[in-house]
Order: sequence, then structure tokens, then C-alpha cells
Amino acid sequence: VSLAAGVFDGLLAIVGEGAVSGDPADRAAVAHDLWPKALIDERQGRPTPPPDCVVWPSTRAEVVAIYRLCSATHTPVVPFGAGTGVCGASIALRGGVALDTKRMAAILDWDEASGHVRVEPGILGIHLETACLERGLTLGHYPSSLVCSTVGGFLATRSVGQLSTRYGRIDDMVAGLEVVLADGVEVSLAPQPATGAGPDLRRLFLGSEGGFGLIVEATLRLHRVPERRADVAALFAGFHDGIAAAREVMQTGLRPALLRLYDPDDTALQASHLGVGEGSGALFLGACEGRTGVAEAEASALTEVCRTHGAEIVDSSAVATWYSRRYDIGFQQAKYLPVPGAVLDTIEVAAPWSRLGLLYDTVKERLRQRLVVLCHLSHGYVDGACLYFTFAGMGGDEDTALPLYEELWSTVMAAVAECGGTIAHHHGVGLARAPYIAAELGDGGMETLRRIKRALDPNGIANPGKWGLDR
Amino acid sequence: VSLAAGVFDGLLAIVGEGAVSGDPADRAAVAHDLWPKALIDERQGRPTPPPDCVVWPSTRAEVVAIYRLCSATHTPVVPFGAGTGVCGASIALRGGVALDTKRMAAILDWDEASGHVRVEPGILGIHLETACLERGLTLGHYPSSLVCSTVGGFLATRSVGQLSTRYGRIDDMVAGLEVVLADGVEVSLAPQPATGAGPDLRRLFLGSEGGFGLIVEATLRLHRVPERRADVAALFAGFHDGIAAAREVMQTGLRPALLRLYDPDDTALQASHLGVGEGSGALFLGACEGRTGVAEAEASALTEVCRTHGAEIVDSSAVATWYSRRYDIGFQQAKYLPVPGAVLDTIEVAAPWSRLGLLYDTVKERLRQRLVVLCHLSHGYVDGACLYFTFAGMGGDEDTALPLYEELWSTVMAAVAECGGTIAHHHGVGLARAPYIAAELGDGGMETLRRIKRALDPNGIANPGKWGLDR
Repeated sequence: VSLAAGVFDGLLAIVGEGAVSGDPADRAAVAHDLWPKALIDERQGRPTPPPDCVVWPSTRAEVVAIYRLCSATHTPVVPFGAGTGVCGASIALRGGVALDTKRMAAILDWDEASGHVRVEPGILGIHLETACLERGLTLGHYPSSLVCSTVGGFLATRSVGQLSTRYGRIDDMVAGLEVVLADGVEVSLAPQPATGAGPDLRRLFLGSEGGFGLIVEATLRLHRVPERRADVAALFAGFHDGIAAAREVMQTGLRPALLRLYDPDDTALQASHLGVGEGSGALFLGACEGRTGVAEAEASALTEVCRTHGAEIVDSSAVATWYSRRYDIGFQQAKYLPVPGAVLDTIEVAAPWSRLGLLYDTVKERLRQRLVVLCHLSHGYVDGACLYFTFAGMGGDEDTALPLYEELWSTVMAAVAECGGTIAHHHGVGLARAPYIAAELGDGGMETLRRIKRALDPNGIANPGKWGLDR
Repeated sequence: VSLAAGVFDGLLAIVGEGAVSGDPADRAAVAHDLWPKALIDERQGRPTPPPDCVVWPSTRAEVVAIYRLCSATHTPVVPFGAGTGVCGASIALRGGVALDTKRMAAILDWDEASGHVRVEPGILGIHLETACLERGLTLGHYPSSLVCSTVGGFLATRSVGQLSTRYGRIDDMVAGLEVVLADGVEVSLAPQPATGAGPDLRRLFLGSEGGFGLIVEATLRLHRVPERRADVAALFAGFHDGIAAAREVMQTGLRPALLRLYDPDDTALQASHLGVGEGSGALFLGACEGRTGVAEAEASALTEVCRTHGAEIVDSSAVATWYSRRYDIGFQQAKYLPVPGAVLDTIEVAAPWSRLGLLYDTVKERLRQRLVVLCHLSHGYVDGACLYFTFAGMGGDEDTALPLYEELWSTVMAAVAECGGTIAHHHGVGLARAPYIAAELGDGGMETLRRIKRALDPNGIANPGKWGLDR
């Protein structure tokens, strides 16, 4: 353990025996998340250097004491949840302490009249959702990683679930927030449905990836489980026809929970899972949730919009199949990466409607010679949508795997910059996007982020080296 | 003019002859907004001290130069839009320069495919909305002050329009933002439908009331003008029955554009304007906007929820009357305040559903002995709503007018703190709420705000003395 003198003992005094470890196995377990580059590095014999120790606090007071100690001793603190991030945000670039939230995973309080639940950050999404469902409630947040990711991770990365078109991104679900800043200051923002009491400090901490401290509690907004789900499946001649329809859906004021359009290559893959979409075309899946009459009227309108854009309406049971399998991918995405030569990743970006088709064509054209490139549109907004690309190259040359992986990222990020999109929709920044964030935020945006980082983390100990601020 | 040496000439060199003035009439015109306390002070012979001069820049480059000059010379800069704020945010507490945005009022660009419009901050809401309507589009932001307030004002105060239940608050409409920080740094955040590239910097600047610098451009999200509006009017036995219904409306997933419930006293007043609601009871007005089939299905569901809570469905033409008069109040609210003895104000707060009824009862009980207290619920959320109180005391004793006015505020703010609400929903903070924001944000929240303020405004020149940070 190469921590500054007294840090390990100080942590031990705070959390007690058994809740801090310098054991190599414990450290290795939190050395990285599911960032594909870390997995490629590992299979090529370059394992990610682990933190110097792991601490598992169980109370807010312990978290405060840990940050005070680490700030005073200039020791990095890197939060770790379930380890299923895909951008390397939890890698302890400069060693120090991995703060694992697994022992802070309680549901603290229900306000069922308001539809509020107060939770600790380490709770798994699926455990929270299950507890909600027992009360006839739902968070409405369904990332494909729901079974293997934490609420703290959702908040830290500004996660977006698969039904966000109706329920919003995690940001929209946060009513109250309790944060411990990097130097131990406690911030308590009580749950409210809405407030105009100054700038939105709750939002400031969302997406901070541990860079300002740790979110120690959140009060989240819940919805009643919808009375009815009305499904629609359609097959468009091509992806661009489907984009036009998705745009009309959103601009005409519909808000289906599920809005998902696969490009022809992705449709061909989905066909085998979902039983529709064989042959050519772009498969669209939609589902409207809510009160029976409204959900059905919305599904009728959705169907009408699809038809207007030339789609063939197909068997909507594909939507039920999709729902039943919607968490199947999350925890399996890394399983092919140990295979030599394999290059795999997903990159989610977004753009306004006017640039979305161009962005799709650009990425597809530049990479499909060397990789399988699948794409689906999801997460509709009135002014644009997310494009979710999946890249796969199996059985390639191990020597060129990493260069190909890095070229894949730089190609997509360059396409986004050229076409006027954003580099990230919902996987966060971490290390994967650190080289590209300056292009997105510009000098002034980076200067703003740098100043806020210094203000909230004066000793630079909160997940240091991220966001490309101080590499 | 008591500005530091060279500042006036420096401003003149930046903006040119005619665009900077130390004339007493020009200064008096921007000395305050429609904050009732300033109007009472004025009628009692204590006019608000004006800024030392007024500057009317017409370009972003001029704004940058103004902030650089003022930051270097420690000269306060206080933005001024249309002057219809109601909390005193535009009062130049420490003199300095009033930066009037009236010459920066252009529509710069349309991206109709995405539904984006890029505007300067000085444009009046009604001018923007009219230009949108000519294209079949709408911002969906309809504060009652639409005819007399600016987009810059909306953004600076985190304004919420009357149809926010469907269209969201102004925060939700901001796709892109261009900001000049207090020391002249330019921040450019390109328009995107959504992004996860780090913490949400766009939101950080919303609600900043000139405290970090000036928003010089915004790209806003537009909606298509809805095909259909389906109206519902209902009369509940009492306000609490109506609250229960509003809660069910929101929690069952309905999102009417208009969701408005008047308490019995307010209902009695509205009856004369709207032609319904005579006698006792609490009047509810709802309107569902969107595609015909969906809007009608939603209105049916809304009707059903009202009936379930015992309401009598009444003539829905009251809703059309309300729509036709919805901007009639905004610019008239101050007209009775010059009358000696008059005490008038509106205070909008919010709370989760579980505390909303208690908050209503508490405020009503504590103040109705001495003032007319009207209340309506509006701006529904899945987890709560806004309560909008109107207080009126006419023909009182001029000597006790100001103490009564101040007691009115402290009473409501204390009730909010006791009941677990928020001090502000959509009028901003300004001076009216400066004494109360620390109770809302707590020590940690205030410390966070103070650190960010210092980081973005190192010389403390951007609308200094606000937020209770440095009184």
C-alpha cells in the first residue's frame, strides 16, 4: 500500500476492521469497470493499475470523515458502485482510495402520497425497482444494465433508461439530493417537485462522476405502474424513413414509452430474437403506457404516423418479446472481449433531427468496411434523438485490435463534431470520452468546468484526472 | 456619475455614443422592476437608488468588453430586461452599470426541422411566440407576463409558463446556450436535444439572475402548434378534494397543458371573469393539447378523475375564456400599488403532494384575518404542484403597510419551511427571497453556491449582493 502515512490507519479508525482493505484481490476487483479498452488491455497483459486500497463505508458520517481525511492528505478518492460503467470512470488513475458504495444500499424512506423514495447510492437498480413494484409504483428508469448497476451510478453518469421518451432521464427523476463534497462539506437539498430557488444545484451534481464528491442519498420520483401498455411494431423501407416518422411522432406531441428504430443491419439481427423484421427494412418498436383510453389513442396515432411514412404494420408481439428481454444484454456485453482479436463497443450519441440522418450515414460509411456496425435510434425528444451504435469485429488480428478500437472511437467522435451532434448521450464521460470533451464544451465550457471543479474539490482529490481537465 | 475613473469613457468607447447614459431619467427607468416592496418604498418617498449609468450593448463582443472592463475595475454589472420581474433581482444594490438588453433582441436563426430557434436575450416573449406561430410552431412557454417580459428574464429566473404541466419550465426548453462570464470568458454550449457530456452546464446558468454573467444567446426547443385542445371545467366541493384529483391526474400519467384549481375565495373572484363557479366550491380548469384523438382521450380521462373525486362537470367554455385572458394580469399587477395603504403581492411556492394541503391551510389560516388571501394550484408534477397565493389589502393604514407587507412574506416563508415546501417556484429569488434562501439550501448548499459564484465571478461584480451570499 503506497498511501501517505497514516491514511490506511485513519480509514480503519473511521470504518472499522473489515471495512477497509489493501488486499490485492480486493483492489483488483475495483480496478476497472466494463470499459472495453480496459478489457482489451487486460487480455493483452496490461492490467489496469488498481487503487491502493478499498473502503466500504456504511454511513454518511463515515463518508464525510473519509473525504476529510483524504482531502487533508491529498489522497485520491474514486467512487465504485457495481462496476458496470462502460467508460472507465471508476478507474483510479492516480491510485488512492476506492470508495465502494455496496454497504450503503438501503431504502431509507417512502413518501407514497408524493411518490418519493429515498435511497442510498449503492442500491442496485433492480432491487429498488422490485421494491417499487411491490407498492404499485415504478421509477420508470430501465437501463439495460438495471440488474447490475446502482442508483449512484445512474446519478453519477446521468443515465438514461430505455423508456426515457415518456419517463425522462435520471435527472428528471431526482427530487432531492444529499452530497458530501470532496472536502467533507455536506450539502442537503430537500425533495421538491420543482423549485426556482436559484440555479439548479441538484443538476450540478448529476453527471459529476465522483469529481465533486459523493452523492450519499437521493430522493427519487416514482410513477404509478401504468394501467395499460399498447404496442406497435412497424417495418420501414429504410432507416431514414423511420427517422422521419420518429421525428413526426415527437413533434406532433406523442410520448410513447418505447420508441426504438433499428437500422437494416440491426433489424436483421433483431429478427432472430424478436420474430419480425426478416428480409430488408428498418424495424420500429413502440409502446404507449398510461391510462387505457389514452395509451390506446396514442398507439393509434403512432400507427397512423408510421403508415404515413410508408411503414408496414407488423405483428406487435415483437414488442412484448422485446420487453421480456430488455435486461438481457447489460451484463453480457463484456463476455466476448477476452477473445483474442475481438473489438467490441457501443457508442451512444445524439443530435438534433436536422443532423441525425447525416450523422448516421457518416458513421456507418466510415466504419462498415472494417467492422459490423449496427445502429438503433432510441430516446426521442421533440428536437432530436439518440443514435446507439454497436461495433463488432471478431476473429481479427490481436496486434491491430487496439489501434482499430481507438480508430473506431476517434472516427465516431469526429463524425459527431462534423455533423453537429453531442459526444455522449447516456454512458457518461469517464476515460473513453476524456479526449473529446474539450471539443464539445469549447474553451469556455472547459474553463467553467475547471473552475467549478477547483471550487468544490480544492485539493483535487475527487476522482482526479478525469474530464481531461488535468491530465 | 460615481463610477470609478475611466469606466464611463471606457463604456462609451465600447458601445459608442447614444448607447451609454448617465442621465437621471435613464437611470431611474432601470432602478427597479415590479417588486412590490420597491413600489411601496417609492410611494412612501424612498425611491430605489438607481445604477450609476445604463449601457445598451448590441453585440456579444460589446458584452464581453463591458464585462472585462467592469471586472477589471470592480464595477458592478446588473442586467436589465423588460423590468417586469417581481422580486427585485434587477436592483443595482451597489450601483454600477445597468446592462440593458433591449438592443439585443433579434431572432438569429431557425432550424425548423429540429424545431430550434436561436435568439438574443432581449427579445420579448410575445415577439418570439408570434414569430413561432407564423411557422406553425410554439415555444409552449406562456407566463402571464408574456407580453412584457424577455427571454433573458425567463432564463435568468427559471420562469415557468401557465401550460408547464405539458410543456415544462423554461429549463426544459433550452437546447443551447451562449454565456459571457463575469470576467468576460465566453461559454458556448451548442444546441442538442440531450447530452450526457458531463454535468449539465446549461442548467447551471439558468436561474443565475445575472450572478455569473450574462446569457447572450439561447437556442430554444419548439413544439408544433397542437391540432386540438380539449377543455374540461369542474367544480369541487372544496380545495382539498381538488388537490386529491390533481394528484391523481398527475400520478395516473395524464399531462394536461392546463391544470388549474382555484380555492373557494379565488373561485368566487374567477366566477365574475369566467362565468362559472358561482356559489361555493373550488373551480378546476383543464385543457389537453395534442393530436385530436389523444387530446380527446386525455380530456375524457381528466373528466373521469374529476368525477371520481366528487366534482360536478361544468361548462367548459370557461377554459376558452381563461385562454383568451391569460396575459391580462401580467402587466397590470402593479397598478394598485401606488394607492396609499395598499398591500399587494403574489407568492408562488411548491411542495410534494403529501404536504401541499397542509401548506395551503397553514398560509391561509395565518393571513386571512388581515388580508384577502386567494390561492390557486397550477403547474402539476408527478410528485407535487405549485401553490400560487395572491394577497391583497386595500385601503389600510399607510404606516403599517410596509410592516404588514414584510410580515406577509415572513409568514409564508416560515410556513413553507415548517411544512416542507420550497420558497420559490417560478418568480426567482432576487431581493424578495434573499433572506430565506439559506433556510432552503442549508449551510452546504449556500457554501456550494458561494464557491461557484466566486469561481465564475472572481471580482464579485456580477449583480453583487444577491442570493444573500454577501450582504
